[in-house]
Amino acid sequence: MPTVRDASFDLLRSQGMTTIFGNPGSTELPMLADFPGDFQYVLGLQEAVVVGMADGFAQASGRPAVANLHTAPGVGNAMGAIFNAHANHSPLLITAGQQARAQMTLQANLTNRDATRLPHPLVKWSHEPPRPEDVPLALAHGLHLAALPPQGPVFVSIPMDDWDAEMPEAEAREVVARGIDGRAVASPDSIRRLAEKLDSAENPVLVAGPDVDASGGWEAIVGLAERQRLPVWATPATGGGMLGFPENHPNFRGVLPPAIGPVAQTLEGHDLILTAGTSVFPYYPHIPGPLLPEGAILVAITSDPDEAARAPMGYAIVADVGLSLAALLEAVPESSRPGPEPNPGPEEIPAEDPLNSSTVHSALAEVFPEDGIVVLESPASTLALRNQLRLSRPGSYYFSAGGGLGFGLAASIGVQLAQPDRPVVCVLGEGSAQYAISGFWSAVAYDAPVTFLVLRNSEYAILKWFAEVESVQGAPGLDLPALDVAAVAAGYGVSTRVASSRDEVRDALAAALASSRPELVEVPVQPGMSLF
Amino acid sequence: MPTVRDASFDLLRSQGMTTIFGNPGSTELPMLADFPGDFQYVLGLQEAVVVGMADGFAQASGRPAVANLHTAPGVGNAMGAIFNAHANHSPLLITAGQQARAQMTLQANLTNRDATRLPHPLVKWSHEPPRPEDVPLALAHGLHLAALPPQGPVFVSIPMDDWDAEMPEAEAREVVARGIDGRAVASPDSIRRLAEKLDSAENPVLVAGPDVDASGGWEAIVGLAERQRLPVWATPATGGGMLGFPENHPNFRGVLPPAIGPVAQTLEGHDLILTAGTSVFPYYPHIPGPLLPEGAILVAITSDPDEAARAPMGYAIVADVGLSLAALLEAVPESSRPGPEPNPGPEEIPAEDPLNSSTVHSALAEVFPEDGIVVLESPASTLALRNQLRLSRPGSYYFSAGGGLGFGLAASIGVQLAQPDRPVVCVLGEGSAQYAISGFWSAVAYDAPVTFLVLRNSEYAILKWFAEVESVQGAPGLDLPALDVAAVAAGYGVSTRVASSRDEVRDALAAALASSRPELVEVPVQPGMSLF
Repeated sequence: MPTVRDASFDLLRSQGMTTIFGNPGSTELPMLADFPGDFQYVLGLQEAVVVGMADGFAQASGRPAVANLHTAPGVGNAMGAIFNAHANHSPLLITAGQQARAQMTLQANLTNRDATRLPHPLVKWSHEPPRPEDVPLALAHGLHLAALPPQGPVFVSIPMDDWDAEMPEAEAREVVARGIDGRAVASPDSIRRLAEKLDSAENPVLVAGPDVDASGGWEAIVGLAERQRLPVWATPATGGGMLGFPENHPNFRGVLPPAIGPVAQTLEGHDLILTAGTSVFPYYPHIPGPLLPEGAILVAITSDPDEAARAPMGYAIVADVGLSLAALLEAVPESSRPGPEPNPGPEEIPAEDPLNSSTVHSALAEVFPEDGIVVLESPASTLALRNQLRLSRPGSYYFSAGGGLGFGLAASIGVQLAQPDRPVVCVLGEGSAQYAISGFWSAVAYDAPVTFLVLRNSEYAILKWFAEVESVQGAPGLDLPALDVAAVAAGYGVSTRVASSRDEVRDALAAALASSRPELVEVPVQPGMSLF
Repeated sequence: MPTVRDASFDLLRSQGMTTIFGNPGSTELPMLADFPGDFQYVLGLQEAVVVGMADGFAQASGRPAVANLHTAPGVGNAMGAIFNAHANHSPLLITAGQQARAQMTLQANLTNRDATRLPHPLVKWSHEPPRPEDVPLALAHGLHLAALPPQGPVFVSIPMDDWDAEMPEAEAREVVARGIDGRAVASPDSIRRLAEKLDSAENPVLVAGPDVDASGGWEAIVGLAERQRLPVWATPATGGGMLGFPENHPNFRGVLPPAIGPVAQTLEGHDLILTAGTSVFPYYPHIPGPLLPEGAILVAITSDPDEAARAPMGYAIVADVGLSLAALLEAVPESSRPGPEPNPGPEEIPAEDPLNSSTVHSALAEVFPEDGIVVLESPASTLALRNQLRLSRPGSYYFSAGGGLGFGLAASIGVQLAQPDRPVVCVLGEGSAQYAISGFWSAVAYDAPVTFLVLRNSEYAILKWFAEVESVQGAPGLDLPALDVAAVAAGYGVSTRVASSRDEVRDALAAALASSRPELVEVPVQPGMSLF
């Protein structure tokens, strides 16, 4: 009879999930015993890094990834990263070891006392199998559920003495052989009605969100915008974990502002607002106003029932975003309405000393490869990067959609491991780099040739900006003196350069992009926000 | 009428809680506006560091400490540290900002969607006030509950637009004026019966745990051991977050092993086992055996109802540990039984190259000041440090009682800030240092002159030892090549030395202890465990 370990690894192998991200403790050792040669274990030195790497890997590989954590404290350290994975709709199978069954009721040290409750409310499902032989089915349940829309993290707690238990061979075979197709297209009626509405609208507009790319809807949304001559906005950057539309496309208008009043103002004049693959909307500062422009209606296509249910306005269609956009494209005629004016390219930003982050991003744009990927966690220059780079290929942009920090550095390593042939640039502030800083060690240990671009402004610039918005004065803790990420990264073995002029930045980034090892370029920049 | 902010800061001020540990986000800015000049804000760069510092500060100051986090992702990042604070019985008032009330129901970005559920099951209480004017009472409820036995963390979620709201002056006055005495001594009956049992036992033994020191029971337990001529064991190191007895005392026997069979074996021959201020027991590896030696009974004094209820054997008295030990001391006569043989001092460990960690700790013992404090997170040399140092004063030892990593580095900074006149030595492995590594920046920024001693063995030694115990072979992720903590700490501005010989270690530690700034001494050590 197969052991629980045999059946579990067969299951993961059958799903192509042969990379395991982890930080081991004693309760995980039995799972890792006799680790199969066709699997890779990627060690993170803190659990925020482990789950962040797995999140990036899952998103960039398009399949669920495994993260293995150390009982309660390991899951605890990872909870911020689990928050991010949940917000990112990232399919993660998170497992943790647990005390031996014989010591759980007396709650011996390192018992995960209330294991299934711990990761809530940030996981879709949380389970601890009541018998050892149920572990493979629990893992199958978890990985299939993680991959079903809305994708997200799930959790399975596994007592450490379960791995050597035997289980019936037929059950092991069936659990490995299962398959699920969870992509379903919107009903023909909804598609037909939406197509008519769209085609007959006076001045419709499209808003593209992260699940367009995640669901393979890139070509369909471009086709739809072109056939119907639609202007296209990106959903507010706060919730844009991936791009939903090529940002160098003539129909692209820009990134919506993230507040109620300004969104309605920006969309003024449109009578039909069609959103795809986004919540409606990821508002952040509370700037009141009408939810929609006068006379406008909103239709949302989302695969997330919660996004549909919690929206404060509009009509929602819950179905696979990519498939439904493709069906809609089939159903609409070529429109004869005048198309939007072509969007001008980014403005040239004059170089200052120290540089403005916009100038840094324009230098990056100069050397950025066609197939490059950006993983972004620089809150003060998110909009400048988007504007200067105008990324145009699917799978080219990853951002923490929930607003939690710690995603960027770790996720960039996972993205690079999933896409070894595409150059990855990870853009960080010196503050945001700190939430998963030990990820630098993993980048070096696993030869992930990420180019880290660190913008150093000696402050939490985004917070100073929010303080202005919120009329807050005299708040402590907003300055970051003497925070030298280049020195810390060098301590972890990353080769680093500091670049100060625009030419130096361009040359340093070109050299880093050409390198086959992780490289870091630190640039002293102006304080404050960079919006263009 | 006072604002919610006025009343809240008055409340904290009235409790002496004028140090706030935090990592701010936009949702916390309104709390921090016009930050009062008599408060100190201590910034941590990641939330594990924030809560770890607050944990050390609370334990070493003897009063609740405040940690302020950034809505859901900030609380998420801190959950491992909250696990530790819970295990440590550390009284923490954890607060987090929340979206503005007007944007919570539509779950705008950074809404802590299920805020009160998020930190469970690791907090004693979790609350989000339904109205702004309830915030001060919620904070009072939280801080009083955190300080009541068993002490531990509580959580209050505060919508960001609550701080400027006004509240009735009388309510603000009453909430500040409240007080609670939660220390209660065991019933006279229990004390009398226990005193008789103890005095009439043939061969009783005492087991001391962390809540002896935490409850001020140090003198009482020493008096009791001496009057009743009791041998005294420390509770297993896994659960010994503080010491319960001076380890240089002649009656001290050592640290109990952390498994069922070996504990019973070690206590063989005793007819009465009295435990104070510990769970019964913090077992870790599952080594089965009898729970108690043949013929022995166990009586536990604990202030934690859960420790009492979950114990697999014995009779428990739930009351303040220090007060009840003092009452017991009053009730017992001087015993005439032969006292235990005086415990010999630590053996001399011959110096090897690289050094054994025991040798490093014997060198530390040579220069360790009378009033020194150790904060320990070096799993492979915990027992060697305890044995070589024989700490003998209350408040001299802090360790993560739950077994989670990330406590040591951060907590040492909080301990130092709470005890500025006592030298603090933080002992870390290069692996354990990674879970809160950015704490080095806070140590430098706030001039906490901690001496960091890092033992570098290029592996997770404790895991290799557990792998042997669990007969696990071929597990990946147990080696830590090229992990240079000294270089990383230097990157954060800590001055560092590497010492290789015993004399170099002693001299480097002496110099670091004499410094008024944070200093780090890294020592390459033998792989494997150091037990003596």
